[in-house]
Amino acid sequence: MNEDICRGRKPVTDLLTKTPSRCAKLLIANNVRPPFLDELLDLARNAKVVYQIVAPEALDKLSGGGKHQGVICRLTQAKTLELEEFLRGIDDNSPALVVVLDHIEDPHNLGAVIRSAEAGGASGVIVAKRRSAIPNDTVIKTSAGASLRLPVVQVANITRTIERLKESGFWAVGLDAGAGSSLWDEKMPERCALVVGAEGEGLSRLVGETCDMLMKIPIMQEGVSSLNASVASALGIFEWSRSCNR
Amino acid sequence: MNEDICRGRKPVTDLLTKTPSRCAKLLIANNVRPPFLDELLDLARNAKVVYQIVAPEALDKLSGGGKHQGVICRLTQAKTLELEEFLRGIDDNSPALVVVLDHIEDPHNLGAVIRSAEAGGASGVIVAKRRSAIPNDTVIKTSAGASLRLPVVQVANITRTIERLKESGFWAVGLDAGAGSSLWDEKMPERCALVVGAEGEGLSRLVGETCDMLMKIPIMQEGVSSLNASVASALGIFEWSRSCNR
Repeated sequence: MNEDICRGRKPVTDLLTKTPSRCAKLLIANNVRPPFLDELLDLARNAKVVYQIVAPEALDKLSGGGKHQGVICRLTQAKTLELEEFLRGIDDNSPALVVVLDHIEDPHNLGAVIRSAEAGGASGVIVAKRRSAIPNDTVIKTSAGASLRLPVVQVANITRTIERLKESGFWAVGLDAGAGSSLWDEKMPERCALVVGAEGEGLSRLVGETCDMLMKIPIMQEGVSSLNASVASALGIFEWSRSCNR
Repeated sequence: MNEDICRGRKPVTDLLTKTPSRCAKLLIANNVRPPFLDELLDLARNAKVVYQIVAPEALDKLSGGGKHQGVICRLTQAKTLELEEFLRGIDDNSPALVVVLDHIEDPHNLGAVIRSAEAGGASGVIVAKRRSAIPNDTVIKTSAGASLRLPVVQVANITRTIERLKESGFWAVGLDAGAGSSLWDEKMPERCALVVGAEGEGLSRLVGETCDMLMKIPIMQEGVSSLNASVASALGIFEWSRSCNR
């Protein structure tokens, strides 16, 4: 179940269409019928991806019991993008958003953040190597495939990474429920590193101190102190989107 | 597992503190030690909630294998708030937000929406009785307890409910990826019924036609057509919050 796979009709056809270079092999259950079968074979041929017709049980085993709807792609080893390589891919002179996750451990939350980051126009998502969810097949599913398209960079040290982003002209904005100023008070920086902490704990002290500024999401209801980490991230991401559009 | 319970240290202490009237009985595993045990007993006495010390296995059984950290509250029958009763509780002359969910089936999504709705200052959440997640213990957990505090109204017919809200002075705004105008284009109405569709399908045709207006969340990235339903809801909810604050 931890082998890198992509399963299910929509995720697999998206993968074959958008990032065929990640497909090592396409496995199709022998009970998949036209017209979907023809669609799959066409996509595989166009993308020059090797395919094989197999017994449905082989797919059950490969997915560890997860739903696959008769189709699974084995993925090529995810290209672990290094921070420097990732930064070289970002245009120096354009607005850009990088989402930095300070230890988000729930893969559903990670997937949801990656999906919102892609939709909101972020250049990529940075996660810590330790104490974090990694981009596995749950993340692919929850992100609706976004984790296969958007760069996800794993780093050893979040604080040092924020320092490096600042050297590259990014302004580091940390989301923190205790911050004095609100996300709605001012425009977000055009080159923005949005730093979001773990659910419950929020930003670690050192990470918070490394940010250029801390902002809170204004909570209307007294006694409610925090939002789900993926919701908080989405509000920050789309606030940046909106700032860049006015 | 479908009995109404609240499980886990934080959810239960929140419940005892904020809505003790929902607690029918507090069950504590006999391996829970001070100081947490003392805290629980104090809370139970203050709230006049009956408690019982039981074997951990009894809690395992009651939670159907879900994590409980040694403590479970049996809940009183949820007061099913009728739409009319709910509407009577909303001040006629103040800004108000009601979130209307058109068939959200995933309890995690429902919980996340209720949590955001509470944080964003909504008066309540309306869900359909059929083809929808119901506020069970997964929803309590995912909503961080918000589903025990915020009114959640189950209705037979979403379209008729939107009509009724309109009669009460609400302006119905449907979130729809295909809408012409964007959430950022204009202020949200002060009395707003925010209507959000099921993941994937979006709003059903009739529900969309019943709304006063449809708005989309501007997606930055081509080829990405939708957001997670709980993320879309949160963006709408906090957009209303923001509108009311400027």
